[in-house]
Amino acid sequence: MAVYTDVTDEALADFLGEYDIGALIAFRGIAEGVENSNFSLRTDAGDFILTLYERRVEARDLPWFLGLMQHLAARGLSCPQPLRGRDGAALRRLAGRPAAITSFLPGVWPRRVRTEHCRALGETLARLHIAGLDYAPIRRNALGPDSWTALLDRCRTHADLVQPGLLAELDAALARILPAWPGDDLPRGQIHADLFPDNVFFLDRAVSGVIDFYFACTDLLAYDIAICLNAWCFEGRTFNKAHAALMIRGYESIRPFCAAERAALPVLAGGAAIRFLLTRLYDWVNRSPGALVTPKDPRDYLHRLRFHLLAEDARAYGL
Amino acid sequence: MAVYTDVTDEALADFLGEYDIGALIAFRGIAEGVENSNFSLRTDAGDFILTLYERRVEARDLPWFLGLMQHLAARGLSCPQPLRGRDGAALRRLAGRPAAITSFLPGVWPRRVRTEHCRALGETLARLHIAGLDYAPIRRNALGPDSWTALLDRCRTHADLVQPGLLAELDAALARILPAWPGDDLPRGQIHADLFPDNVFFLDRAVSGVIDFYFACTDLLAYDIAICLNAWCFEGRTFNKAHAALMIRGYESIRPFCAAERAALPVLAGGAAIRFLLTRLYDWVNRSPGALVTPKDPRDYLHRLRFHLLAEDARAYGL
Repeated sequence: MAVYTDVTDEALADFLGEYDIGALIAFRGIAEGVENSNFSLRTDAGDFILTLYERRVEARDLPWFLGLMQHLAARGLSCPQPLRGRDGAALRRLAGRPAAITSFLPGVWPRRVRTEHCRALGETLARLHIAGLDYAPIRRNALGPDSWTALLDRCRTHADLVQPGLLAELDAALARILPAWPGDDLPRGQIHADLFPDNVFFLDRAVSGVIDFYFACTDLLAYDIAICLNAWCFEGRTFNKAHAALMIRGYESIRPFCAAERAALPVLAGGAAIRFLLTRLYDWVNRSPGALVTPKDPRDYLHRLRFHLLAEDARAYGL
Repeated sequence: MAVYTDVTDEALADFLGEYDIGALIAFRGIAEGVENSNFSLRTDAGDFILTLYERRVEARDLPWFLGLMQHLAARGLSCPQPLRGRDGAALRRLAGRPAAITSFLPGVWPRRVRTEHCRALGETLARLHIAGLDYAPIRRNALGPDSWTALLDRCRTHADLVQPGLLAELDAALARILPAWPGDDLPRGQIHADLFPDNVFFLDRAVSGVIDFYFACTDLLAYDIAICLNAWCFEGRTFNKAHAALMIRGYESIRPFCAAERAALPVLAGGAAIRFLLTRLYDWVNRSPGALVTPKDPRDYLHRLRFHLLAEDARAYGL
């Protein structure tokens, strides 16, 4: 929940002057989101979202993200649409940060995942993957498996303060998962890579929008499902296999997995758990006392990682 | 910036079922506000704010607050209007907290106070005071001068960790301000008591709304101006006398001060600085490592307090 950078009225007025969206009516910070500063913006032309890009988002990647969102929307996926100013640019600067205005999407993100969300989520993810297939530009996954060892190294001295034995357990998990990581025999494409419940809006049991594409990248498509297995299918420490099965069934109703993808699911899901565990661990050990956002407890993902390491094959996920 | 309590879709749907406001379209947490959890709520009937009351707000005071807001709006002050459900009640429970839906107000709160805001703010505050005069119910100021000694006592052992010498300085300030505190010779009425810039919306240089009445109480009217002098007229440690003069001139164009109010301004402003210093100090020394909201630095108000203690009379504020 965050507004890291606030925007003065004058700077906002100047910024809005670059667009044909009428007069300002309201401007409020949005609590959701931990990476960027988001504001809901109302003008007499309608509702919009203003995002200031912070921290982990590289400015040079922004055209790729905005381009992907436009590409996906043109193929029917409901996602925020970057608004172009009078000069044709969608990206400019505000309060010292790269900034963009995007369209407002209706819907409510599920605070508690219910059965009815799972199939629709799987279908939407598959549609996102198919819509992204002809988006040619490539963005490598900066938080992919080749980054994990270095990320753990940066937490090495503090990891065991979070939980005794954590460092050894993560070293062992990496030693098991990295050599087993699937290669180019699995289909690749544009993935969301951060499809948590607060990034998916629902209206009347249907997905009304997908947001927050700022971790999206070109990677194994099945890795996106592996992330969703972690993000949607655990209730505390308990894995909800029925939810996972519904999600995967929904996905496969649009894009069936190949045998290699099914076989790789436990390794991909374990890797996804490590990815979120490591970034949370890094944020946890490097948190500053005056931080605006409380870092999330990395240990939630340790229990998920252990579950995936015990999974023998895709049947653990209800396949 | 805060959403302390989140609301599940089912609980929200049940809650909205008590109102005639149509189907849910969107529901997002609002970053602003440190005391309660606020959400912007859109239905096909329009836009609303949903508030869950947390922490410092006493449930038994809520009818008083909501009643005041209705009273002020009926007299032309733009402030949130509690929505009544089918049962006629404006207040019910959600996610284990008292909760209410209020109307959405247009406008933008000033991130940086400019000259043009000050007169309009003063006028609005005077209109609020006049509109409140015939709101009969009384709510004593739970954070008034009779609470300050006890509040300081609860920070006594930690105050000097925040700044060496702070405890002695606050003891001395209280010893000077409390005996000088004005009594019933000053006009009393309903005051907002927390009129910071983020509680006042502007549109086109005019005040479009006043929000967050959950510290409002029955107290000296001039104390409200004293709070605004602290909240609006300091830029860092520097007092902007021109802004203060404009604010007071705006106020007096609607409701002129009596001589006793003018004379009491330095004491009232010093007391207001102590009130915010003490609650921030309390939150600072009692903060928990996992707190959602970073406590504000109490020392900002120490510099304001020192300024007021040096003020000889109302001329210090541009009168």
